[in-house]
Amino acid sequence: MTTTYHALTEAEAIAYAQGLPNIFSPDAVLTSREIGDGNLNLVFHISDEKSGRSLILKQALPYAKVVGESWPLTLDRARIESEALQLQGSLCPDLVPHVFAYEKELALTVMEDLSDHVIMRKGLIEKNKYPLFAKHIGRFMARTLFFSSDLGMNQQEKKLRVGRFINPELCKITEDLIFDDPYRDSENNNIEDHLKDAVQAIWQDRELHLEVAILRNTFLTRAEALLHGDLHTGSIFIKEDSTKVIDPEFAYYGPMGFDIGAVLANLLLNYAGQEGWSAGETERTYYREYLLETVKEVWTVFEREFRALWDNETVDPMSETPAYQDWYMNRVLQETFGFAGCKMVRRIYGLSHVADIDGIEDAAARERAQRLALAIGTTLIKRGRQASSIDELIAVAREASVAKEGVR
Amino acid sequence: MTTTYHALTEAEAIAYAQGLPNIFSPDAVLTSREIGDGNLNLVFHISDEKSGRSLILKQALPYAKVVGESWPLTLDRARIESEALQLQGSLCPDLVPHVFAYEKELALTVMEDLSDHVIMRKGLIEKNKYPLFAKHIGRFMARTLFFSSDLGMNQQEKKLRVGRFINPELCKITEDLIFDDPYRDSENNNIEDHLKDAVQAIWQDRELHLEVAILRNTFLTRAEALLHGDLHTGSIFIKEDSTKVIDPEFAYYGPMGFDIGAVLANLLLNYAGQEGWSAGETERTYYREYLLETVKEVWTVFEREFRALWDNETVDPMSETPAYQDWYMNRVLQETFGFAGCKMVRRIYGLSHVADIDGIEDAAARERAQRLALAIGTTLIKRGRQASSIDELIAVAREASVAKEGVR
Repeated sequence: MTTTYHALTEAEAIAYAQGLPNIFSPDAVLTSREIGDGNLNLVFHISDEKSGRSLILKQALPYAKVVGESWPLTLDRARIESEALQLQGSLCPDLVPHVFAYEKELALTVMEDLSDHVIMRKGLIEKNKYPLFAKHIGRFMARTLFFSSDLGMNQQEKKLRVGRFINPELCKITEDLIFDDPYRDSENNNIEDHLKDAVQAIWQDRELHLEVAILRNTFLTRAEALLHGDLHTGSIFIKEDSTKVIDPEFAYYGPMGFDIGAVLANLLLNYAGQEGWSAGETERTYYREYLLETVKEVWTVFEREFRALWDNETVDPMSETPAYQDWYMNRVLQETFGFAGCKMVRRIYGLSHVADIDGIEDAAARERAQRLALAIGTTLIKRGRQASSIDELIAVAREASVAKEGVR
Repeated sequence: MTTTYHALTEAEAIAYAQGLPNIFSPDAVLTSREIGDGNLNLVFHISDEKSGRSLILKQALPYAKVVGESWPLTLDRARIESEALQLQGSLCPDLVPHVFAYEKELALTVMEDLSDHVIMRKGLIEKNKYPLFAKHIGRFMARTLFFSSDLGMNQQEKKLRVGRFINPELCKITEDLIFDDPYRDSENNNIEDHLKDAVQAIWQDRELHLEVAILRNTFLTRAEALLHGDLHTGSIFIKEDSTKVIDPEFAYYGPMGFDIGAVLANLLLNYAGQEGWSAGETERTYYREYLLETVKEVWTVFEREFRALWDNETVDPMSETPAYQDWYMNRVLQETFGFAGCKMVRRIYGLSHVADIDGIEDAAARERAQRLALAIGTTLIKRGRQASSIDELIAVAREASVAKEGVR
């Protein structure tokens, strides 16, 4: 098989998998199922019926398709994804799929099959609870962000790593879709008619625009830590006793609050989506409480573990400066508020929505969920630079719910 | 002549210059004078007696010598310097030496001879005034910083340029000598006995240490604009009608305030050094006024030109967000205060001092100058995050002078 880049056929994927050393036995009978959505990547699920062994071949396509449009997209993202996965794996081996191989020419990563997990967004929509999730994701973020920052690795090597993770094309997607399009009348937006007044209000909210411009500036310029870069609940495979973070093709050196904010925003989007749950008020209240407790625990675990790493494993003597750690954590918290807010807003009427809310069939209930998400998101953006505790974020969600219930 | 890297002899330098196209005529009689200090670079002044033409060959050495010590240093800094000079030259052709050629293998840059200029530090020590300096350097900083930032160039190309200017070894010199060593009992410090009490006070000043840690964090992480990186008055060639910024080997993507702060700090170091001037009080007062007016004008020209570029030449539509420009300029001002303060402190008892102050022979006058510089520097560091006008910086200098005069 030639290794010049071309999109693999299933037969080629099987042949490639069979040729990998020490995975399948020579007499294995391999079958392939292409399970990607075809918009960005091919994803071959390769399995051997005899041994029960399986793995994933993920191949980047040289284009992106989103909502019918197609544009060219660098294959280098496969290198970035596989290098990020391997770095994350060295720090949290239990929390990412294991990478067996990376084939540069084919933009192909061979990794652990996680078919026994479900995508977390789907799990939350099905009202499942994941009691270990906050501990897992808090530890994942604390370790991956700390050990890639100037606090946790050699500061000269970090600069070289910044260079290896320069990722202009993927960053531009974020810069446009999260920080730009939602705040003006862009053709990339996808606005339901019943939301037009709320969107108009956002387009005219100058106080909000300033905060978004500042957050975008931070996203553009702050090479703080190697981010996952797209850490929503669709990038997390989960089951009761296991959490796996996948798809870090947006990885680059950016502000820590962007990853943390992504996790919290997607929990809060599901929280808003509870407006569409047909079960009784009590069940809804309980699930919402679970979500808010999880939001708080994600931050609390992150902060506790990050501070412990700082106290015990820093390589930077100047990081022991009194009060510096508190200043640093508070800035991360403030930016977490702001980025969480931006992530919520764009998912309501930007280019790409979330099933937690778009999946609500009843239009009135969907609209309530959308307005609640916008209320929480815009408030978080505006309060970010004054925030000093995760409890304030929880309070924003609660107060927005009460206000919406009041006018319903 | 082989082009494998080796330190050139003068004969080789002459032969190389003779071989350059379209510079010297074939019958030119070239002579060479090595005018570098030999610590970091060889600098050959090549001239043709017949035509009167001359140029500079600057070759990086694979080591640095500072105060007797020697350590290896990357030759890649010659590439960074020549690329930075050419970018600066494309934006401000009158304010940097013209680059005729860059020879990667030899780490050699061929550039315009500026022998008719003097090093600005020397000019200030000789009490010269340079009426065009503030306009020149203000424009230099406004244009080089704006057009290398996300405001003034394509944001995806900017990310690639960040990668080309990753400069770990030179940045480490700054990180250690400016932000770390002066705030602890480091063997790199060079402390006169009569200053020990003042230095001890700085080592115990926790409020100061927090501000320095925050500034160092900004230096480490904020990829805002392509800085010169070492913009003190020893990196500026000057005469009455011309200013030329040289030696950008510390260039990297960092916070704009670091370059601006360097210029202001070195004017203020000379201001403090006036304690050692044997002329009368009136002359001293006049020269100090000239220096403070220049400090203010440097910032004022920078700010005016930067805002004009923002209003007229930005490529980023989001930068038109109301109030964003004011927020941005104020942050640059605040960081300018802090970085200026750090630059002043390290020049008094860190590894490398300045002749404006070390050149004062009278020990009591030198001590007054040193204490004045430390008072101004530490106050700027502490006030930085609250600053809102350049007038506050001028006031800090004036008030520190009055306080020192008071106790003299």
